[in-house]
Amino acid sequence: MSLNSFGHLFRFTTWGESHGPAIGAVVDGCPPGLALSEAQIQPFLDARRPGQSRFTTQRQEPDQVRILSGVFEGKTTGTPISLMIENVDQRSKDYGDVAKAYRPGHADYAYDAKYGFRDYRGGGRSSARETASRVAAGAVARLVIPEVKILAWVSEIGGDRIDMDHFDAAEIGRNPFFCPDSWAAARWEKLVDDARKSGSSLGAVAECVATGVPAGWGAPLYAKLDAELAHAMMGINAVKGVEIGDGFAAARNTGEGNADPMRPGQGAPEFLANHAGGIAGGISTGQPVTVRVAFKPTSSILTPMPTITREGEATELLTKGRHDPCVGIRGVPVVEAMMALVLADQKLLHRGQVG
Amino acid sequence: MSLNSFGHLFRFTTWGESHGPAIGAVVDGCPPGLALSEAQIQPFLDARRPGQSRFTTQRQEPDQVRILSGVFEGKTTGTPISLMIENVDQRSKDYGDVAKAYRPGHADYAYDAKYGFRDYRGGGRSSARETASRVAAGAVARLVIPEVKILAWVSEIGGDRIDMDHFDAAEIGRNPFFCPDSWAAARWEKLVDDARKSGSSLGAVAECVATGVPAGWGAPLYAKLDAELAHAMMGINAVKGVEIGDGFAAARNTGEGNADPMRPGQGAPEFLANHAGGIAGGISTGQPVTVRVAFKPTSSILTPMPTITREGEATELLTKGRHDPCVGIRGVPVVEAMMALVLADQKLLHRGQVG
Amino acid sequence: MSLNSFGHLFRFTTWGESHGPAIGAVVDGCPPGLALSEAQIQPFLDARRPGQSRFTTQRQEPDQVRILSGVFEGKTTGTPISLMIENVDQRSKDYGDVAKAYRPGHADYAYDAKYGFRDYRGGGRSSARETASRVAAGAVARLVIPEVKILAWVSEIGGDRIDMDHFDAAEIGRNPFFCPDSWAAARWEKLVDDARKSGSSLGAVAECVATGVPAGWGAPLYAKLDAELAHAMMGINAVKGVEIGDGFAAARNTGEGNADPMRPGQGAPEFLANHAGGIAGGISTGQPVTVRVAFKPTSSILTPMPTITREGEATELLTKGRHDPCVGIRGVPVVEAMMALVLADQKLLHRGQVG
Amino acid sequence: MSLNSFGHLFRFTTWGESHGPAIGAVVDGCPPGLALSEAQIQPFLDARRPGQSRFTTQRQEPDQVRILSGVFEGKTTGTPISLMIENVDQRSKDYGDVAKAYRPGHADYAYDAKYGFRDYRGGGRSSARETASRVAAGAVARLVIPEVKILAWVSEIGGDRIDMDHFDAAEIGRNPFFCPDSWAAARWEKLVDDARKSGSSLGAVAECVATGVPAGWGAPLYAKLDAELAHAMMGINAVKGVEIGDGFAAARNTGEGNADPMRPGQGAPEFLANHAGGIAGGISTGQPVTVRVAFKPTSSILTPMPTITREGEATELLTKGRHDPCVGIRGVPVVEAMMALVLADQKLLHRGQVG
Repeated sequence: MSLNSFGHLFRFTTWGESHGPAIGAVVDGCPPGLALSEAQIQPFLDARRPGQSRFTTQRQEPDQVRILSGVFEGKTTGTPISLMIENVDQRSKDYGDVAKAYRPGHADYAYDAKYGFRDYRGGGRSSARETASRVAAGAVARLVIPEVKILAWVSEIGGDRIDMDHFDAAEIGRNPFFCPDSWAAARWEKLVDDARKSGSSLGAVAECVATGVPAGWGAPLYAKLDAELAHAMMGINAVKGVEIGDGFAAARNTGEGNADPMRPGQGAPEFLANHAGGIAGGISTGQPVTVRVAFKPTSSILTPMPTITREGEATELLTKGRHDPCVGIRGVPVVEAMMALVLADQKLLHRGQVG
Repeated sequence: MSLNSFGHLFRFTTWGESHGPAIGAVVDGCPPGLALSEAQIQPFLDARRPGQSRFTTQRQEPDQVRILSGVFEGKTTGTPISLMIENVDQRSKDYGDVAKAYRPGHADYAYDAKYGFRDYRGGGRSSARETASRVAAGAVARLVIPEVKILAWVSEIGGDRIDMDHFDAAEIGRNPFFCPDSWAAARWEKLVDDARKSGSSLGAVAECVATGVPAGWGAPLYAKLDAELAHAMMGINAVKGVEIGDGFAAARNTGEGNADPMRPGQGAPEFLANHAGGIAGGISTGQPVTVRVAFKPTSSILTPMPTITREGEATELLTKGRHDPCVGIRGVPVVEAMMALVLADQKLLHRGQVG
Repeated sequence: MSLNSFGHLFRFTTWGESHGPAIGAVVDGCPPGLALSEAQIQPFLDARRPGQSRFTTQRQEPDQVRILSGVFEGKTTGTPISLMIENVDQRSKDYGDVAKAYRPGHADYAYDAKYGFRDYRGGGRSSARETASRVAAGAVARLVIPEVKILAWVSEIGGDRIDMDHFDAAEIGRNPFFCPDSWAAARWEKLVDDARKSGSSLGAVAECVATGVPAGWGAPLYAKLDAELAHAMMGINAVKGVEIGDGFAAARNTGEGNADPMRPGQGAPEFLANHAGGIAGGISTGQPVTVRVAFKPTSSILTPMPTITREGEATELLTKGRHDPCVGIRGVPVVEAMMALVLADQKLLHRGQVG
Repeated sequence: MSLNSFGHLFRFTTWGESHGPAIGAVVDGCPPGLALSEAQIQPFLDARRPGQSRFTTQRQEPDQVRILSGVFEGKTTGTPISLMIENVDQRSKDYGDVAKAYRPGHADYAYDAKYGFRDYRGGGRSSARETASRVAAGAVARLVIPEVKILAWVSEIGGDRIDMDHFDAAEIGRNPFFCPDSWAAARWEKLVDDARKSGSSLGAVAECVATGVPAGWGAPLYAKLDAELAHAMMGINAVKGVEIGDGFAAARNTGEGNADPMRPGQGAPEFLANHAGGIAGGISTGQPVTVRVAFKPTSSILTPMPTITREGEATELLTKGRHDPCVGIRGVPVVEAMMALVLADQKLLHRGQVG
């Protein structure tokens, strides 16, 4: 069962709610002997951390991670690595109104229908705050796949796309949008600011590329690399679509147009295109593994929306408080983490099964 | 581990290759006491069966399913249900050329990179033939969720979309394209025929809606209903993209535009929209669960493509033989089956965990 | 979920009932490239096969195994290996009386309480016939661990123990009891014959030793090698006790007496004793892995026993038909198979996690 | 994968080492709406807590549990319950000598062979300290099965057995041995004291009975109730043998002697004996579920034993420090916890699969 766990051999379990004392992850199956300290995890958490610009929620969380087990004398031991992040800024008074009714677009109603209770303090377990645990676990996963380089960015906000001719990887870290196109970043500044000021919100598309993945990773037929990536990405809060390689564009192409011809290369074959996104039959081909992810606009907005109370009465609700005007932005480090977690798992699976 | 198995409580394992003596599935976790016979499974296999029109592969397979265990006196017993389908038309001579080189776009190279061998007779385990096992298992899954109605169709071939104003569910079974729009079906006839005749192939988009799913199914956080559906669908051969609800269109919407407001309804709340596709926080909301799936064009085409031999030499390959000019068409019964399999599993999970 | 599956990376799923058309196993996770044919599996099935002497059930089953998938050109491919054994001698008329009442000591009542039905033809899924599937899967597992030699025997029948001074491994295959002590075998002949003639039955103890297991296999903490072996063995029909190494005798020893001191050896340390049965902290030590298993006497006997009908009426039942007077005897090949299956799985797990 | 997790639907994952900052467990799959606070877990931890008499290790650990997630307003929410216990008394200086060589009988050598490192501060992950996490998780499991009463005790220390005619359940909590026979408790006081003073150690047998388990729990064929119990118990530190019902004694009985005849009873059938220990075919029968567990004597003793250093040199080692002279005693709360954890899981599985 993988209800709050993910992965087969490299496996993590997360726990914790947005307004509880702490959140965390237990990483099981990390091979022994890898150098690991809090300092290696922290930068990834810092990238996801809220409150760093006016374009993200103003909740102030230092997101300091603590390693509670699984590391001895600076190295992983092969036993479970327990990671804990304390919640510091849980000001639940902000969420007072929410207690009365289900927030439209949020998981409030669905959770109540399932579990029969309301954690009216905030999203509880369904809050995007849980993704900090994934980012921490993902930092550990990266140690397992040093041959792989993972890079994600935002390629589109509110329908405004980057221009691939302007793509500059170095730019990604220089603006608050993980945007590789400085022209687009400039436009998005106004776009997101306008949404924030008007109490609206915007959707986004994030893209992620993993280079250095050797051919042969992937566990057919029901733990295929692309299926595992789809699971990992669709499980991120607010994600509604996942594409591998050309994705939906492939459905509009022909067999000739969509082919990835091969010719002899150095050591491995050279591919003349990568429509497949580096995966064929659920197995990596040695080409870059590419994923595209659609984030819906944040459901918390300042426009009052019709909804019902827990007692079934009609009411209206607008969600005040500290929210991301575009939740997709902070999704970038989460997408990278999930990519790392899937690849680390598949590497160990491949090693176990094929040797 | 779920390498050739799928599901948690309602779980199936498939086996078999395109050119072996048989393929099959073992369905584990089906509740006892459900009426089941081969006659209930066969219609779903017949819908997926090849050779029924000139728009699908001409391989002739009766796809007769046999139940080898788990049923006694016409009812399921709660023990594993073994389903077997013999391969009849394995004419592997058709695939002679393929033995020499990797077919571009196929899993040939990736499988060899992983497992170190070539099953030159055809796709082997990576062949779409395996999906017959899924369809058989899916027919059993439907027994577990009699409250749910599942309907899938092709909404787009080669970029030509149906018009939702023409949507007629009854039409789906009347044409060889699972097309609910008779105007579009007429256009596709020429489109697919042209592709077939020219040895080309086309991509397609399939859509699937499950109505009657009660609010509360889904197992957060790492077996979310949407994540499980994404896994199930992305694992189907040739699928490159999955959307839940509005999918990528949500990324271009605003928070107000994307909201699904609620008002009091009969028994359950009434939603005023369904951008979310019936899932919030990974849990069903009671609205129709909607999924959209992108199929790439069949990789087997009559245009010669550059590739390499197993020894790494440059060559060209065109894939003769019996292929679907648009593999997405026969994907429709598979998409329905995967929807049924995910929902049956989530129903049992919900019952087990929440009672 | 492992309801009808066992193992983590080397994993098998069994299906089938004693009186259905066939039984079988799907072996998933077998590495590619291993030479495999039916001829390699058959000898192990033959050793377990009923009807070979008057000391086992007279049901006549050829137990011919068929490989339906996962092998190409004589080698495993890394994909699921489907094994099928047809049931030939299902004469269910023999079981007529059983339809009326629950057989005491059998799983009849428990299965009905769980699943709400009676398969009155025989044990159905709970029949020892299912163990043929395990033996077939175990034969595949042996290919994965060529470095390991597994040997099991019966050490005790009806309380009459072998004398370890008479132990001769070559003797095991020469008598119908898998008995390594020819003196004991001679005594058991009369003992089992008397039980058979009087319609009684006897319990037995089997022992199993695996040599060549390197130090380091085992997956702490909840897939420990000893815990997995205990699970595997206790799950065999009629087994009521499992010991690793000295087992219960260790509970009567002192720390000094129970120690396994070490001294420098060739390549690996040399142990001066093996009270631990080759496992410490759930991990193999490099010493022989030793397991002892208690089989209860066959529950089917010719003495009438009080029981109840399905309607709850008092009645008496004696179980005519074809039964093993000592079910532990034919348990030996099953014990060996489960040892092989656990070790193959642990070898792959170790390789995956530690490299 | 269940490497540091246990259970299917009610599932827990433990983490932490004996000398790290803390240990803990994440309990996943606990149904929502159950009243839970630290005060309900603490008594079970207190029963297992060291340092309470001279018959257990003198390590002083308050073993205060903290609930970090999964509980809101005093009730479980259905989300993961994170339990943490800080290590307070890790005086690792006590273990100085151990750094030089492998302690015979301990997991030191096996862990090094597997993972390639030595946690010379103590047992690390293989320490019995980890069982505190199981006891905490077990306290949560008890909430799921209020219909079941679990009772365990020590029935034998150093080969000295209790007299069942003296059995008094009330006595178990009155002496430091969990002994239900006050005569035996008096004898054991001297026995264990002598072992302690002479630096020796003793083995023990613990027994556990669960009453109130309804007929029908158990998940055949590879998650049978008895197999799961065997796995759970054999995985406890120092356990070398597990028996269900009559266990090895059944192997010395006849079919007639071992039968559990039935007669009509109130609501459920009445059984005239319970040789089977309440389990047939891996499914509960409604009778008390009985398990017997053999604990080896503590490996840490004051008699020097031959061993080797990490460099492979011969040496001798005696294990000073704070150890239990009879580790089986404090095993009793752990045995109870594992019984609760298995039963809670099987209850949910049954509900999920059979409804």
